[in-house]
Amino acid sequence: MPNPAKVNRQVVLKSRPTGVPQAEHFELRDAPVPKPGDGQILVRTVYLSVDPAMRGWVNAAANYSEPVPIGGVMRSLAAGRVVESRHPDYQAGDLVSGWFGWQDFAVVDPAAIDAKIPDADLPLSAWLGVLGLNGVTAYFGLLDVGELRDGETVAVSTAAGAVGSCVGQIAKLKGCRTVGIAGGARKTRLCLEEFGYDAAIDYKSDDLDDALAAACPQGIDVYFDNTSGAISDAVMRHLRVGARVVVCGTASITQWDPLPQGPRVERHLLVKRARMQGFVVMDYRARYPQAQAALAQWVREGRIRYREDVLDGIEQAPGAIAGLYRGENLGKRLIRIAPDG
Amino acid sequence: MPNPAKVNRQVVLKSRPTGVPQAEHFELRDAPVPKPGDGQILVRTVYLSVDPAMRGWVNAAANYSEPVPIGGVMRSLAAGRVVESRHPDYQAGDLVSGWFGWQDFAVVDPAAIDAKIPDADLPLSAWLGVLGLNGVTAYFGLLDVGELRDGETVAVSTAAGAVGSCVGQIAKLKGCRTVGIAGGARKTRLCLEEFGYDAAIDYKSDDLDDALAAACPQGIDVYFDNTSGAISDAVMRHLRVGARVVVCGTASITQWDPLPQGPRVERHLLVKRARMQGFVVMDYRARYPQAQAALAQWVREGRIRYREDVLDGIEQAPGAIAGLYRGENLGKRLIRIAPDG
Repeated sequence: MPNPAKVNRQVVLKSRPTGVPQAEHFELRDAPVPKPGDGQILVRTVYLSVDPAMRGWVNAAANYSEPVPIGGVMRSLAAGRVVESRHPDYQAGDLVSGWFGWQDFAVVDPAAIDAKIPDADLPLSAWLGVLGLNGVTAYFGLLDVGELRDGETVAVSTAAGAVGSCVGQIAKLKGCRTVGIAGGARKTRLCLEEFGYDAAIDYKSDDLDDALAAACPQGIDVYFDNTSGAISDAVMRHLRVGARVVVCGTASITQWDPLPQGPRVERHLLVKRARMQGFVVMDYRARYPQAQAALAQWVREGRIRYREDVLDGIEQAPGAIAGLYRGENLGKRLIRIAPDG
Repeated sequence: MPNPAKVNRQVVLKSRPTGVPQAEHFELRDAPVPKPGDGQILVRTVYLSVDPAMRGWVNAAANYSEPVPIGGVMRSLAAGRVVESRHPDYQAGDLVSGWFGWQDFAVVDPAAIDAKIPDADLPLSAWLGVLGLNGVTAYFGLLDVGELRDGETVAVSTAAGAVGSCVGQIAKLKGCRTVGIAGGARKTRLCLEEFGYDAAIDYKSDDLDDALAAACPQGIDVYFDNTSGAISDAVMRHLRVGARVVVCGTASITQWDPLPQGPRVERHLLVKRARMQGFVVMDYRARYPQAQAALAQWVREGRIRYREDVLDGIEQAPGAIAGLYRGENLGKRLIRIAPDG
């Protein structure tokens, strides 16, 4: 889709938040449309991704990637179309997803491209969610880090979210019992009706210990942890011998500096011969295609469903992360900034 | 060694402690010397083991084994000699180690015997320490759970202790840099002069963060955790990407009910793609001989040294655990209750 825009609208980081970034930490800026150098590709972005991990990318505290600099374009996954290519592997018209940032146009090296999207029978937006980092995170976190085995009991926090819903569905199609933990009746209903969880727990209204004991009478073999905090503290009390806790996200903790206190985990780990393991999906980059092929097939077969929460216009981007942390979305949050197709 | 004793002196649990068991939680009792039934073995114990894990065995809280019942003989490893055997695999005179309890005589099934000690070029007492559960714990914890790799940096808490000193020496002979954490100048000197650590940190007088940063400029790849608590909290701040924390013991925590609070670990685990894993050596029972053969060879070659703290007489047993937790021993604590040889 050739795009006539002469201006590259960018969302840049204006000041560094200490907790969840709010709209006022960003500003919109107009820049010229960049030109690709030798070996580079110019991409017109169509969908921008909004992810909980972005909080970490703009905070100054130690993280798994360098913080976005003040005045820099917000780091983001995005999906779009190649406008101009000076690299032999890409040509104008190709659909791609990758690290294009919150902006209309990005000039990138091939290393920034996560996927060259095959002639798409599945929607472009899906490559930022169920076929993108969310699905790939669920896939490797559950199967590789969690070493899921047939017939096990799997608990998932933020169970109706973009990663969590995918974790629950993969575990289910692998023959496991799945227990989703989410906030509010709307989300627990979604867990049961849309994502096929065997049980759903509302951490806002249920007694977590009672509900976990009822839903997981044999204990929990794999806990896919997207929250940390009180939810995880409760789950730790219900681990089964040999349990694996996949530490994927910490959505319930708004500040890590200074480190918040919580109940010590060593005794649980020792008595249950359990392990907790942190996991950053970018480490699996070389193996993304393996996960994406499996996920695409499951989506085509209707065995994995997904939901999207699409905001329209790049002006929505600055406030979109804070909205995620308020739990206002039901499904993978995206921003559409150009016509899709 | 035929023993003329007509009485079986036993140390039994009198009341259940909530923290570290003290002398008053036990009492001495005289019982008749038992007779082995069909398929059983009568053992005269020579050395009784005293281990930090005993605290857990007598506490009521959830643990990896049933608590010792009130009025029951204190559970313990011991080494001794077969007096009478009604099992074809054992005969009078054999040296054995196993779960014989704090008593002069034990009638046991073969399942209670951990090792049939080969014609001993090494002292019998070593089979309760460096060749027993302590050494085996170090071996599997470090190599199996910790997945130690050549050239890594290994930190060990209770570094001069029976398990810790063995961990440090195995890591060293596997080509790693070893950093021992212990309490007091006497123990840190032992770490450096006797157990070959590259660096030793006195947690009682050094600033842990400064000392760890100086001793581990590249960060810590494997942390063998025998303490939990403030020492471990500090080590967590110095993990390297891909680190493994082997949760082996929690010596610094005197009570687990209710769970004590500490800094949350999830962010460390996530940022460092690290894992914490609990580990109970009894799960490796089928593979003890593999570890014992390696350890015995290293001891013969002088590549692993060990120290013992031998108390004389079964009357010493009741107070011996509390003494461990006061740190009064330098080396593996044993109680000799019969002539050795």
